[in-house]
Formats: sequence, structure tokens, C-alpha cells
Amino acid sequence: MNSGHTPLQSIQSAANPLVKDLRRLAHDSTAYRRQGRVWVEGEHLCSAALLRGRVPSMAVFSQAGWERAQPAHRQAAARNVVVADALWSAISALESPAHMGFVLELPAAVELVADAPTVVLDRLQDAGNVGSILRSAAAFGFSQVAAIRGTAGLWSPKVLRAGMGAHFGLRLVEGLDEAALLEALELPLLVTSSHQGEYLHRASLPWPCAWVLGHEGQGVSAVLEQRAAQHIRIIQPGGEESLNVAAAAAICLHASAAGVH
Amino acid sequence: MNSGHTPLQSIQSAANPLVKDLRRLAHDSTAYRRQGRVWVEGEHLCSAALLRGRVPSMAVFSQAGWERAQPAHRQAAARNVVVADALWSAISALESPAHMGFVLELPAAVELVADAPTVVLDRLQDAGNVGSILRSAAAFGFSQVAAIRGTAGLWSPKVLRAGMGAHFGLRLVEGLDEAALLEALELPLLVTSSHQGEYLHRASLPWPCAWVLGHEGQGVSAVLEQRAAQHIRIIQPGGEESLNVAAAAAICLHASAAGVH
Repeated sequence: MNSGHTPLQSIQSAANPLVKDLRRLAHDSTAYRRQGRVWVEGEHLCSAALLRGRVPSMAVFSQAGWERAQPAHRQAAARNVVVADALWSAISALESPAHMGFVLELPAAVELVADAPTVVLDRLQDAGNVGSILRSAAAFGFSQVAAIRGTAGLWSPKVLRAGMGAHFGLRLVEGLDEAALLEALELPLLVTSSHQGEYLHRASLPWPCAWVLGHEGQGVSAVLEQRAAQHIRIIQPGGEESLNVAAAAAICLHASAAGVH
Repeated sequence: MNSGHTPLQSIQSAANPLVKDLRRLAHDSTAYRRQGRVWVEGEHLCSAALLRGRVPSMAVFSQAGWERAQPAHRQAAARNVVVADALWSAISALESPAHMGFVLELPAAVELVADAPTVVLDRLQDAGNVGSILRSAAAFGFSQVAAIRGTAGLWSPKVLRAGMGAHFGLRLVEGLDEAALLEALELPLLVTSSHQGEYLHRASLPWPCAWVLGHEGQGVSAVLEQRAAQHIRIIQPGGEESLNVAAAAAICLHASAAGVH
């Protein structure tokens, strides 16, 4: 059964400590911080991680998943684990479990690069929004995302899933306070606003820059707002509607990319 | 207790047929089609409905909600209903129940306007994406949304919530097939593509127009693709990442609005 690629361990018991750890990583949005590693489930996300050069410490398959696994996934990790099919639902948090996944170790501390194009997340709450913004950041040539403390966990299972692999192409720094962010970044801050500043489609945008996106209800904090190099607003001829923050982010990040290219 | 605004009915039993109907509307994504009405829960959404001139057939409050209700919400409907506080959780699907809501009757059939700026949703699956696109459509001056059969229900509770009130400013037509759509619209179709067409930021866009946004996995159907007046792609210098469809929609609809203003 083991094609000889890597040592294979078989787990049959739900009481196995690894099964419990993986279950926590898959279900609990903050478990990755305690364990220092993330659970990446499903072929798409795992392939995205490999494409970006990430090396999993462990690959985990259900019995059925192992039998149909891609060679690239069987050969990716130093350690392969196969769990009984019946145990997989104890691990997975997905409605349609994927039958394979990687464990990736997270680096202990990631430092911001002072002048790398950056997206700042100021206490964003919704995992779907954060994941969508990570996709936009990666697509539009931003290389790092800095999350102020209070933002949804960037490596939480829901954000990881919504990110569709964008995580693996970005430098992700979280748990920052405003002072640490402002000290570390040497970039003009562009702050989105619903009521002040230049309209985005008429603005001349600096590059590199840091876009600051604020809390879904409260917007950008006063501390960051005061340090803005430019306030930017998005034209909304339809009236008083306010945009979803991930939609606003996409528009702003695209405008930066379009300005450079 | 009743401030004399409208007749007040009190419900104490979970077996009451209205409680059961409201529970279905709040929990079941297709119940609005069977009942011909929607359940709009929470002060923000209800105020958005009133602001757009919608008149609820019924306003429903928990006992606590009634006591602190805004006069505008107490006076909005011809019929006010108060249910026992303990029953509210039987109705609401929200993690933080809002203690008040409106019932809005849906018109039996809504016809497309041939030349109104339009967003076409081609079998989009995710309620959060659909709701976000409705917000963008309303913000950027698109007045109608046409959903091909297979798209998430536009009036389903999750889409309604993600739409944050945008529903009430839009003409919403759903359950269409491609032929009916093409026959009804007299507008150039702009089809988003990841691999062909002109880059959005260099394109000259017609107005009015109809933007076509496709299924999260499969994209736009061949039938609609063939009828495109223009294929449009979004520059992605970060590489192969693909954008979230609501993010792509926001960028495209904003570009139309920016081109007009």
C-alpha cells in the first residue's frame, strides 16, 4: 500500500493524540497559535502550498484518500499518516471532507519588510472577508499582509479556506499594535474612507504603498487614520450604500496594480 | 403597551402557525418562494427597507424588542405582532437575535427592464458572494440583478443578510434561463474572463451595460459567453491567483461607475 515514498503510520483510534490535535486545528480558529502549525485540507489548498515551495511536516490521508492520492501529495512530506476512513469525519470540519491534508509548521516570528507593498487589516472580523482580501492582495502584487490585533486569525481554518491558497504566496504578520506597525513600515498609508478624500478613480497612487482596511462596522482606527498619506474614497453613484470591505479592498488593490502596469 | 399605532397581537405558543412560518422563512433558503414573502430581521435591514419605500405587511417583535422599538418600526406595518421573549429563539436564525423584524410580501412576477444597467449572476453558489455583489450593484448605479436558474436564492436569509439592505434598492429577477435573459435584455453583455479579452483598466466600457458573473468554479456558461459584446479580464500581476467572484464583480462594476462619472 505504501508506495515506498515515505514512512507510513496507520491510525485506527479516535483517542490517538494526533487525531485530537488535527481535530482542534480543523475546528478551532485559534488552535494554530497554540500548536504553531496549521492543518491544510484538500487537494487544491495542498497543491497551492507545494507550488509556493512550502514543505509540509506531515501528510495525512484517510484510507480511501491514500489509495487515490496524487504522487506529489504522497511524496511531499517526511511523514505520511493514514487514518481509518471512519475517523476522518472526527478530524475534518468540512461539509464535504477532502480525505487528505498537510500539516505545515508556522515560523515562530515573521517580521514586516519595511517597503514591501502591504495590506493592513485593522481589526477585520469576518473570516470570509479576510480570506477574500488575501486573494486580492496576492493577485494584485502585494507581498505582505499586516493584521492589527483583533483581526480574525489569518491562519484560522475559515480564513485559510476562503484564501484559496493565497496564504502561501504572502508574508503574513499578525497580532500587531498600531505603534509597532507604524514603526515597521516605511510606506505611504492609503486609508479608505466613506466620507472624505480623493476619489480613487481620479487619484494618483504611490507605489509601493500600504492600503489600510478597517473594521466592518467601525472603519479604520483614529491612530491609523491620522497617519494616512492619502484618504481615498470610492465613488458610489447609487447612493448611500456602503460596500462590503472585501469588495472595497479589491477595488483599491486593483487600482494600484492597474496604475503600475 | 401598544402605543396606539397599530393593532397588536400577542403570541405565547411555539405551536402558533405564524411562529412556524417565520421560523421557516428565517432558516430555510427556499421558503420565501413557497410563502411569497420574506422575513427581514433586525433594525438595520428593516430601516433600509423603509428608506426605500417598502411597506411591510407585518412587523414582529419580541416582548423586549417591542418595548424598545423605534416609533418608525412600530408604525411601519398594518399589523404588529409581539411574541413572548422565550419564543424568539425559535424564530431567529441569528447568533445574536435582533428582537424585531418585518414580513415583506414579494411581488408575484418581476420583469426585466430591457435597457437598465444590469448585473447577471450565472449560477453563483455562495450566499455571501451574492449578497456582496448586490451591495456593489446598488452602490455603483446598477438598478437590476438578473439571476440565472441555479443561482443562490436572492431573497434567501443569508443573501438578504449579506446584502445589508441593497435588496430594497434593486429590481431582482431570478429563475431565468439563458434564452429568456438574452431575449429580455437589450444591452451589451460584458463577460469577465480569466484568460481572454481586454484588460479592464485599459478598456472603454459601454453604458448602460450588463456585466455577467459566472459560477465560482465553472465561470460563465458557453451560451452567455458566446453572446458577449466584450470579454474583459482583470490584470493580476501577482500571478496565477484567481480572484473571489464578488471581488472581481466589485472591480468591474466600479470601473463602469468611474467611467460614467
